[in-house]
Amino acid sequence: MRTEHFTTAGALAAMPGIADGPQLPERRWAAVLTADVVGYSRLTSLNQEQTYLLYKAHRRELIDPKIAEYRARFAKSTGDGILAEFETALDAAQCAIAVQERMVERCKGESVHRRIVFRMGLSCGNIIADREDIYGHDVNVAARLQTVAPAGGIAMTEKVAELVGPSLHLPLEDLGVQQFRNMCHPIRVFQCRVPGESIHENSAESLV
Amino acid sequence: MRTEHFTTAGALAAMPGIADGPQLPERRWAAVLTADVVGYSRLTSLNQEQTYLLYKAHRRELIDPKIAEYRARFAKSTGDGILAEFETALDAAQCAIAVQERMVERCKGESVHRRIVFRMGLSCGNIIADREDIYGHDVNVAARLQTVAPAGGIAMTEKVAELVGPSLHLPLEDLGVQQFRNMCHPIRVFQCRVPGESIHENSAESLV
Repeated sequence: MRTEHFTTAGALAAMPGIADGPQLPERRWAAVLTADVVGYSRLTSLNQEQTYLLYKAHRRELIDPKIAEYRARFAKSTGDGILAEFETALDAAQCAIAVQERMVERCKGESVHRRIVFRMGLSCGNIIADREDIYGHDVNVAARLQTVAPAGGIAMTEKVAELVGPSLHLPLEDLGVQQFRNMCHPIRVFQCRVPGESIHENSAESLV
Repeated sequence: MRTEHFTTAGALAAMPGIADGPQLPERRWAAVLTADVVGYSRLTSLNQEQTYLLYKAHRRELIDPKIAEYRARFAKSTGDGILAEFETALDAAQCAIAVQERMVERCKGESVHRRIVFRMGLSCGNIIADREDIYGHDVNVAARLQTVAPAGGIAMTEKVAELVGPSLHLPLEDLGVQQFRNMCHPIRVFQCRVPGESIHENSAESLV
């Protein structure tokens, strides 16, 4: 995964004394993808080592290469998933779908204890970027939408749906306007399910 | 903030071809501190730029130096806070208290729109570490406890409370056993409030 992130601030970081002071943040338009593992805490508390190894195998063999293929400008681990930033909403959406489609294959035949299922959120807008992370309303929105995405599927904002809908090979479903905790305005949510995704229905959240 | 993380895997990363394959994870005992901003999404959706600049000032002037002072072995940004790993529970707890005590001073006189209030979680146990992140049950527990910590205060596991209680200058309060979503076993929670913390009661979550 590319985690390098070249900004003006990054260049200044080489100059002692300047990097430590306040910096004007870089602002840019971006499409934001977040992903996490359904029931990750439960899987981890049942078998920490196995969950780590399975998760990392999906990252190494599928997710990180896909993120690179779709030219993510920034990507970082969030422990049980990733936060990635793309140049266009279509790059982000096609990357998300490519991963979720392939995950159906990878999970076939696995017991629920060994099944790593991702849910994903997509948003776009003006973000703030510095040397260590990306910030802003649409980063938060992507993370919030991810929590309502179907297991193995993708939730996105209306803006993303408008931008990518005509170009995707999968239909988008309008879930209507939803109010999220700690968000000032309601958000109209669209979701995308991938074929065969029902394999994920009996996921880690059902484990005792 | 020190984000370098020297592991066997890290050394191997210099050797092309080896770093890309599966790696045995490093396991180690650690104390884990997580922190995030109360009502961060709300503050961001009200004023993205201002929230970023205020948050980064607290990080740069207070939190990152304190994390370095208490010799964190690993630390990373989580967007609106940090995940840090310490050698001992006492390092983690004293770091957390030092930050929260100083935040009371820093927030005095600030309007609720400009007030950045952290809540923190502390846990300890065997974790898994690789080149990009730390993983494991106790990393998840710290993150979960953080969500029930009082605004401006700290929540911790029973184990942390046992290890640090006699050495702290502040009392710990036993909140009893709590069941968290997606955690297999209930967790006995202790909390630590810092003097003057009531300044945070009218925090960002009250903003419309």
